[in-house]
Amino acid sequence: MPDALTMDKIVSLCKRRGFVFPSSEIYGGLGSSYDYGHYGVLLKENVKARWLEAMVRERDDIVALDSAIILHPQVWEASGHVGGFTDPLVDCRFCKKRFRADQLDDAQCGKRPSKHPGETDDCDLTEARQFNLMFETRVGPVEETGTKVYLRPETAQGIFVNFKNVAQLARRRPPFGIAQVGKSFRNEITPGNFIFRTLEFEQMEMEFFVPPAEADEWYRYWIEERRAWYLRLGIRESHLRVRPHDADELSHYSSATSDIEYLYPIGWSELEGIANRGDFDLTAHTRASGTKLEWVDSATGERYTPYVIEPAAGLNRSMLAFLCDAYDEELVGERERTVLRLHPLVAPVKAAVLPLLGKDAEMAGRARALYEELRRVLSVEYDDNGQIGRRYRRQDEIGTPWALTIDEQTLEDDTVTLRDRDSLAQERLPLGRVRERVLDLLAAPWSSPKAS
Amino acid sequence: MPDALTMDKIVSLCKRRGFVFPSSEIYGGLGSSYDYGHYGVLLKENVKARWLEAMVRERDDIVALDSAIILHPQVWEASGHVGGFTDPLVDCRFCKKRFRADQLDDAQCGKRPSKHPGETDDCDLTEARQFNLMFETRVGPVEETGTKVYLRPETAQGIFVNFKNVAQLARRRPPFGIAQVGKSFRNEITPGNFIFRTLEFEQMEMEFFVPPAEADEWYRYWIEERRAWYLRLGIRESHLRVRPHDADELSHYSSATSDIEYLYPIGWSELEGIANRGDFDLTAHTRASGTKLEWVDSATGERYTPYVIEPAAGLNRSMLAFLCDAYDEELVGERERTVLRLHPLVAPVKAAVLPLLGKDAEMAGRARALYEELRRVLSVEYDDNGQIGRRYRRQDEIGTPWALTIDEQTLEDDTVTLRDRDSLAQERLPLGRVRERVLDLLAAPWSSPKAS
Repeated sequence: MPDALTMDKIVSLCKRRGFVFPSSEIYGGLGSSYDYGHYGVLLKENVKARWLEAMVRERDDIVALDSAIILHPQVWEASGHVGGFTDPLVDCRFCKKRFRADQLDDAQCGKRPSKHPGETDDCDLTEARQFNLMFETRVGPVEETGTKVYLRPETAQGIFVNFKNVAQLARRRPPFGIAQVGKSFRNEITPGNFIFRTLEFEQMEMEFFVPPAEADEWYRYWIEERRAWYLRLGIRESHLRVRPHDADELSHYSSATSDIEYLYPIGWSELEGIANRGDFDLTAHTRASGTKLEWVDSATGERYTPYVIEPAAGLNRSMLAFLCDAYDEELVGERERTVLRLHPLVAPVKAAVLPLLGKDAEMAGRARALYEELRRVLSVEYDDNGQIGRRYRRQDEIGTPWALTIDEQTLEDDTVTLRDRDSLAQERLPLGRVRERVLDLLAAPWSSPKAS
Repeated sequence: MPDALTMDKIVSLCKRRGFVFPSSEIYGGLGSSYDYGHYGVLLKENVKARWLEAMVRERDDIVALDSAIILHPQVWEASGHVGGFTDPLVDCRFCKKRFRADQLDDAQCGKRPSKHPGETDDCDLTEARQFNLMFETRVGPVEETGTKVYLRPETAQGIFVNFKNVAQLARRRPPFGIAQVGKSFRNEITPGNFIFRTLEFEQMEMEFFVPPAEADEWYRYWIEERRAWYLRLGIRESHLRVRPHDADELSHYSSATSDIEYLYPIGWSELEGIANRGDFDLTAHTRASGTKLEWVDSATGERYTPYVIEPAAGLNRSMLAFLCDAYDEELVGERERTVLRLHPLVAPVKAAVLPLLGKDAEMAGRARALYEELRRVLSVEYDDNGQIGRRYRRQDEIGTPWALTIDEQTLEDDTVTLRDRDSLAQERLPLGRVRERVLDLLAAPWSSPKAS
């Protein structure tokens, strides 16, 4: 039985196999900032692609958008971010460190290493002050004369300010949605939970514009739809819960919000938020810009400001949830193996082609031919490096669902072994049928082999 | 015969069909900043996907990376950007505007609208001063105590500082490469050529690490390889040229650079640069960080600092080149049509399903069924909105290669019309064969029907 999953195990696997590295590591790193290596990029891109498929390609009622990171500064005044997107912070007069006033339990004195975490008693704290979380910069060539602008702290506002352009072109009446994937930036004091919360992060946000009377119904619809997406991609039901916000937790713009939470090693934490934003944003930008952001029915003349239901997911923490949920250690005979039981549709590599003896020209030839055939349609890897057992373990750790081994028998009868990552079952099949078989397996429903 | 292509025509089509909007338009815009609408996102994602396919998936010797936008500030000191990534600017004491000292011909006095562009004679200019092009911001919650950092002006440095991590995991000896797609930021005074040069832009960069003795050979290889990529995706040979930099144009880090230039409406301009960066970057980061960034052969003990060949392409200006090259106007009978003759592999939508009479339940039923079948494998659009001729023109303008029309005859014999965007040829085929036919067409070689 594996020990309890810790974040350290995930961090270690991610470093060891090149999913995620601390950013700027050779310069001592930059707190809460990470770079994604080869398999990390492939995994992250797959999660993004599944989201876009579900939100845009498989639907008629949602279009895509990619707005700029640096928007006109008035956008953030109208949205309320310049005034209110803040954390309360306290300074310590003694150790000079700065803490979040609402999270002093996690804080640690900067001068005297505490015996217990949270021992800020040593500190001599100031009153809490509000600090804005937006990164500021200046457009224009000089400090003195440039215009102060912000790095967006969310992608959503880029969608709202494009509402009129998109609505005119979409040739659709509400309900319809606009989806966007992109980076956002928040200048936060973070507790350092790996890629769960980072200074820059990728969001997958969709703003769904609906007639006000239908807002409640669509709010419930999107909670269920988004929850089902994670389950379809193999997240265990027992690790997922929906938590409606209490009235005192709600943002100023929202009349109802629910978090989809995942049971990370750090405990239940937000994976995605679904909010009923009402007409707050369109009304705010209408007022500030003088451009009416409303729906007008050209046939009937009916006009109204749509309500907005927003499912807003974090791509990096989504990826972290897929990694945690997939991570497993088990004894195989006398040997422990670590395996990522990722859903095949999010796994970075779908199949590995392994010549048993990499230096055998004939085996290598057959293996290369199979590899070339497969990679035209799939993310596939060729590996002839080292003992076969070591290669299997490597593919297990990056979550490759199927390994194809070319051996002596292949040279005799043109068959190969297909090894299943999860069950370790092996089947023998003709070379000519491999491609079709792997594509069939990929298209088949899949569920985690781990007990929930 | 169409009139000469102007940037205005491209801008107008992009706005009209929702490819590209001026960013923050309802607030009066933000200079040189754009948002990408639905078809713009699809087109841009397709260009990116073709690049990643050619650079990563179809090769064994290149891996992917996605590094942070905000890196440790020492990265930019070591790379030379803090000291030398500048433009020379002059101020006008009279009109108070600021101009690039090396581009005064394009400048225009801010007070007196000149009769001729470039008439800065009215101005009273200061001596040129150097201004850094990197956007600055601060990490940490307050202006006074935060650490000054930069938004990356190129993705390349994020690759160099990860060299050791990646090289260890890649289990490869040079030559091998690391590829990255992502946003970069440059605080430039731009002449406003649409998406050719913008404050934030996406780069597609690959750093190819080679034994020093092979650098020249790989430099020539990558020039040819990248040129061939554009040609394969339909860019006309007559619109593409390779221009080696003169000795006095070369960056401080480069011993040889060639630009692949495209004939934009604004004239021949850089589409992609291929540079031999030598060992400049790895050596600079080794010196600054104290971490040896070199190649060590664990078997022989051989060690050296690889040279780097870098093909660096701009995604947005690439997309602009595909749009310009595809743009065409022609007379069909007495009617002029505008058509984007995009390569099918970059076209935002591959096929449109059009019921001749959208309100005919039976036609709509067949059309929906075909649409549902196709969209499982392709980017496809359903359109029942308006006259069929108007719908064809709409699909022509977004560059959809194939339109599938369901009409009265479909109800009788289960066949549909497949209309080719470029030739306007129509063929009749059974509903059950459409999917296979479209996939075959998509896989077939394609070349621009326009004379080169």
